[in-house]
Amino acid sequence: MGRSYISLDIGGTKVLGAIFDENNNIVYRVKKKTKAEEGFLKIEERIIKLVNELISESGMDKNSLTAIGAGAPGIIDEDKGEIIYTPNLPWRNYNIRSVIEDRFKVPFYIGNDVKMGVLGEWKYGAGVNRKNIVGIFVGTGVGGGIIIDNKLYTGAHHSAGEVGHMVLNTEGPYCNCGQRGCLEAYSSKIAIAREIKSQIAMGRKTVLKDLMEDNIMNIRSKALKKALDEKDELVIEVLDRAIYYLAAGAGSLVNLFNPEMLILGGGVMEAVGDYILSGVKERIKRFAMPDILNGTSIIKSALEDDAIVYGALALMIDKTSRK
Amino acid sequence: MGRSYISLDIGGTKVLGAIFDENNNIVYRVKKKTKAEEGFLKIEERIIKLVNELISESGMDKNSLTAIGAGAPGIIDEDKGEIIYTPNLPWRNYNIRSVIEDRFKVPFYIGNDVKMGVLGEWKYGAGVNRKNIVGIFVGTGVGGGIIIDNKLYTGAHHSAGEVGHMVLNTEGPYCNCGQRGCLEAYSSKIAIAREIKSQIAMGRKTVLKDLMEDNIMNIRSKALKKALDEKDELVIEVLDRAIYYLAAGAGSLVNLFNPEMLILGGGVMEAVGDYILSGVKERIKRFAMPDILNGTSIIKSALEDDAIVYGALALMIDKTSRK
Repeated sequence: MGRSYISLDIGGTKVLGAIFDENNNIVYRVKKKTKAEEGFLKIEERIIKLVNELISESGMDKNSLTAIGAGAPGIIDEDKGEIIYTPNLPWRNYNIRSVIEDRFKVPFYIGNDVKMGVLGEWKYGAGVNRKNIVGIFVGTGVGGGIIIDNKLYTGAHHSAGEVGHMVLNTEGPYCNCGQRGCLEAYSSKIAIAREIKSQIAMGRKTVLKDLMEDNIMNIRSKALKKALDEKDELVIEVLDRAIYYLAAGAGSLVNLFNPEMLILGGGVMEAVGDYILSGVKERIKRFAMPDILNGTSIIKSALEDDAIVYGALALMIDKTSRK
Repeated sequence: MGRSYISLDIGGTKVLGAIFDENNNIVYRVKKKTKAEEGFLKIEERIIKLVNELISESGMDKNSLTAIGAGAPGIIDEDKGEIIYTPNLPWRNYNIRSVIEDRFKVPFYIGNDVKMGVLGEWKYGAGVNRKNIVGIFVGTGVGGGIIIDNKLYTGAHHSAGEVGHMVLNTEGPYCNCGQRGCLEAYSSKIAIAREIKSQIAMGRKTVLKDLMEDNIMNIRSKALKKALDEKDELVIEVLDRAIYYLAAGAGSLVNLFNPEMLILGGGVMEAVGDYILSGVKERIKRFAMPDILNGTSIIKSALEDDAIVYGALALMIDKTSRK
C-alpha cells in the first residue's frame, strides 16, 4: 500500500486542496470558496468537508492517508499547529491541529502560506539544491520566506520573513500594517490597485476600467496581464513603479542575506511575472552591492499556484520522517 | 599546561591584540597602529611583530598557544582563512592563514570583524543563550552580524549581514557603496560628520569645532560624547537624525528576522550608547510590527571594544574543538 498526503492552501477567499501520491505527484485537486464571512465554525466545517470530498471523489484508498498538511496566512506556530493570528480569517490562537487530527486520525501540520510556498520551491521547484534562498511573494500583500542552511527560518516567535514590511521610504505612503513606506505599500496588488484607482479618478483612461466593472480595488491579476498585453499606458506606468520598489526591497534583501537565489512568486507574478522579472533584474543593480548580486540568481516561482500545497507536502514529509 | 589563545582585531587604523587564558579571560593586551599606508607586506610584518610582542612581553608559555584568531574588515572566506576584499587595507584575495600558520605553527582562523563582534556578544557578552540575534555596529560605517539557530550566518558567499546597505529611502543621500539612501549614509560616523560639517560651513556654532581642530570628517566618537554632555544643539540635532534612521533600519531588521535580541555596538555606541539606545527604543515603534517588536530585547553591546577579540576567540574554540 502506497502513502498519500492531503495538502491544503487555505486562503482568505479560496481553499485549494490536493492529493499527493508517494512520488510527490498531485493526483487529484479541488478548489472551493473559503466563505470567511460565514465565521469561525463554518470555515472549519468547510475544510473538513473539503478533505472528505477529496477522499471520496478521488477514490483514493483512505488507509493510505499518511498526513494532512496546510498553509494559511498569518502568524502560525508550526510546532503546536496553532494559528496565532491571521489577517483575513476569523482565527486567533486557534489550534487547528487538534480539530483535524481528532476528525481524521492522521498527523496534521500547518505553516504560514508564503513560507510554505518558499519551502515548496526549495524542495520541489525553482530552488532545488540551493542552501540559502529568499522568496518574495507578491499577491494581495507582499510576503516572504527565507531558507537558511537548508532549513526554513521562522525566527524567535514564528514571525520572521516579513519582507513586505521593510521600510523603503521612511516617510512613504501608509501601509496596511500602520507604518509608512513599506514594500507592501508600493508593490502589492492592493497598492497597484490604489494607484490605478487614483488615476482613474483623475480622468485617465485604461482598459482596466471595462475589465474591472465597478470594484477597481478587487483588481484581478489576470486583468493586469490583459491590460499589459494591450500596452495600457496607465497599467504599465503603475506596474513600473511597483517594480522599482520591488527591486529596492529585493536589493536590500540580497545585501542582508547574500542568498544563492531570490525567488519571485505569488499571484501578481503568476499573471505578469516575465514583465516584473526582467524589470526587477534591471533595476536591482541600483540597490544591491554588485559583488553580492553577482552570486545571486533571480528567478520566477516554478510551482506557481501549487507552491503552497507543495510546501505543505515538504513539511509533512519532513515531520513524519523524523518520527 | 593550560591552553591560551591570541586574538587580533585588525582595523584600518589600529590592531588590538589580546591573549586569552583557558578560562576566556584576557590576561594581556596591546594596541598598535596598523599603518595601512605603508602597504601590503608592512602590515603583514607588523601583525607578526605584534604577535611576537604579545608572546614575549606577556611572558606566556609559548607552548600553551593553541590557536591565533582575528577579525578584519571586509569580505572574508572563513573556511579558507582568506581575505577576499577589505575596504581600508590593501589586501585582495590574500590568504593570511597560510602566512600566520607558517610563521607560528598553530591553527589560524579569521572572520569579518563585525560578524566576529556579534559572535563575541552571543558567546560571551550580551547575547548569551539567545538563539537568534541581529547585531548592528555603528562606527566609521555601519556593519552587521546575524546569529541564526545558534550559528553565525554568513550567506552563500561570505557576504551576508550588510545591514548598513539596506535602503531606507530610495532617493536618499549617496552612500559610500555607490547606492543611495542606505542606513550607512544616515547613521555612520562619516554621515554624522558630514552633516555637522555642512552646518558648520553654514555658520552654525558647535563645541565640536574646538574639539576637532581642522579635520571635522575625522570626528572622534569621544568628541561626540563630550559635545552631547555639553548639550551642544547641533550635535543633538544631528545625532537625533542618525537615531531616527537607525531605528528605521532596526525596525526592518526586526520584521525580517524576528530575533530574540537586537544588539547595538560599535565605536559610536561605545561613546554615546545610552543616548542612542533610548532613542532607538522609542523610535523603532514607528517601523517594527508591534507583535514582533514585543518579543525582541534591544540592548547595547556588553563587550564594547573587546567584542571582536572575543568573537575571534569563539571562532577559534569552535574550530579547534571540532577537529
